[in-house]
Amino acid sequence: MNAADDLQQYLTARRTAIDVALLASLPAPPSCPSSVADAMRYSVSAGGKRLRPILCLASAEAVGGDWRRAMPAACAVEFIHTYSLIHDDLPAMDNDTLRRGRPTLHLVAGEAMAILAGDGLLTEAFALMAREPSDSDASARKVRVIEIVAAGAGAAGMVGGQAIDLASVTPNGAGVMPPPLDGDALRAMHARKTGALIRASASAGAVMGGGSDAQIDAIDRAAAEFGLAFQIIDDVLDIEGASAELGKTAGKDAAAGKPTYPALYGLDASKRMAGECLARAAAALSEVRLADSRLLQIGRWIVERSN
Amino acid sequence: MNAADDLQQYLTARRTAIDVALLASLPAPPSCPSSVADAMRYSVSAGGKRLRPILCLASAEAVGGDWRRAMPAACAVEFIHTYSLIHDDLPAMDNDTLRRGRPTLHLVAGEAMAILAGDGLLTEAFALMAREPSDSDASARKVRVIEIVAAGAGAAGMVGGQAIDLASVTPNGAGVMPPPLDGDALRAMHARKTGALIRASASAGAVMGGGSDAQIDAIDRAAAEFGLAFQIIDDVLDIEGASAELGKTAGKDAAAGKPTYPALYGLDASKRMAGECLARAAAALSEVRLADSRLLQIGRWIVERSN
Repeated sequence: MNAADDLQQYLTARRTAIDVALLASLPAPPSCPSSVADAMRYSVSAGGKRLRPILCLASAEAVGGDWRRAMPAACAVEFIHTYSLIHDDLPAMDNDTLRRGRPTLHLVAGEAMAILAGDGLLTEAFALMAREPSDSDASARKVRVIEIVAAGAGAAGMVGGQAIDLASVTPNGAGVMPPPLDGDALRAMHARKTGALIRASASAGAVMGGGSDAQIDAIDRAAAEFGLAFQIIDDVLDIEGASAELGKTAGKDAAAGKPTYPALYGLDASKRMAGECLARAAAALSEVRLADSRLLQIGRWIVERSN
Repeated sequence: MNAADDLQQYLTARRTAIDVALLASLPAPPSCPSSVADAMRYSVSAGGKRLRPILCLASAEAVGGDWRRAMPAACAVEFIHTYSLIHDDLPAMDNDTLRRGRPTLHLVAGEAMAILAGDGLLTEAFALMAREPSDSDASARKVRVIEIVAAGAGAAGMVGGQAIDLASVTPNGAGVMPPPLDGDALRAMHARKTGALIRASASAGAVMGGGSDAQIDAIDRAAAEFGLAFQIIDDVLDIEGASAELGKTAGKDAAAGKPTYPALYGLDASKRMAGECLARAAAALSEVRLADSRLLQIGRWIVERSN
């Protein structure tokens, strides 16, 4: 079997386990009202690449741990990613209508319920990381993972990146638009907006897998490169891709006047930059001994994906 | 000094410490963008009774613990309460304009930033509980507290209560309003919407203070009664109070056609029911040995307050 087939088998197997765990981890009646349970399930079950939970599980395996121990953290980061999409799609934010190939949640359940379902998913992520694994030996690791994930998701991470993104397309009091982000500012924005949670996903997995501090640090730096590569390719696909395959509205960033890598550097240079991210990730991972080379294969998949 | 003066001194002292800790715990530049930091600070620094953090600290003291150990959890529940007010006030939810005596956040920072600031506060609450106290001995207690607070704040608790509240004022597909909530349904809604986080605040304090399981359970049950009494009095004040003193719009529940205790039972019976909650709380607390009687004094203050 060649490496690509092996990776596809791996991704399919982990994705199946993740989808089962996600649904099993969602709150359900009678513990909570069916309205909010249905809304949360609608968005979580819509699929998606499951990149963050896969990175979490693969990082646990890379340090020689059992991926099942990292599954609660993996589900938690996917809950957080899903909540961020729900809130991002709201009329007051990006006002989007299509997500993961379905109408956005606020179109089917109303804006108020979409806000609540997002809040519920974010909260449930932390409930899950605190609850599982349930053995008392896991407390110290769980606290560390919760701190990592909260830092990646919060005002210093993902939420902060969204605030920068928002400011970049919001006119000031006099109705004047801010100057477009330059390359450094764009990179800094994405390091928070998408990079921080991707890093946290990998680091959390490495912690739950019992990695050494050096391993966790190397995986964290590699994941930062994966996150940047992911965003660059996202921008490329926003131009080159079709909405049907992407499962979301193509071309919307350009239409919204948002800065993108292809707009700043062109398509060819953007693709080259994504490749350079992979090389830096490989260098970071080569500094430590890992149980397998799966993380780097996942990095290549990120750059070569078509949706 | 009589008990009332003593309680006022206690509340003032703890509130001052809480306000200092809240501001110190908020993320700030350069770790996060100033836009979202400013928005979070605007809402957190608007004051309020600080009932939840006070209950948290007083519960730690009631089991003979050091209230300082419970301060991170106290700040966390106030962050969560504040985020819930921000999201509740949004145009898509209650569309309110006045909160804690100030214009609501979405009026001063925009709807998108209000959504983000709420998300940021909710996330920061968990970051804080995971981070502090920082000694490694605290891990097991921190995990337990995070689980308690997440359960109280999530779809089975506060978010679930808001979903029920929302459904009670939302017409169905044919434009027909649902039947008004009866007494049992109203109580069940409030047990989630306000009761769950109030219970979690007290339980979290008791856990951080090192309480026994019996003490934690008794305090949890007493806090459930405090939560119900608090809501009943809130409904009474919505009718009897003035907006200026309340710091929020008076009469809005009645105007919105929302079910309230006075609407169902009348003002006198509602006040009597709040007193009965206190009696049940006293009975619960009397089952265990506690270091002081402060929690019950706080319960009386909840029922006798005028804002």
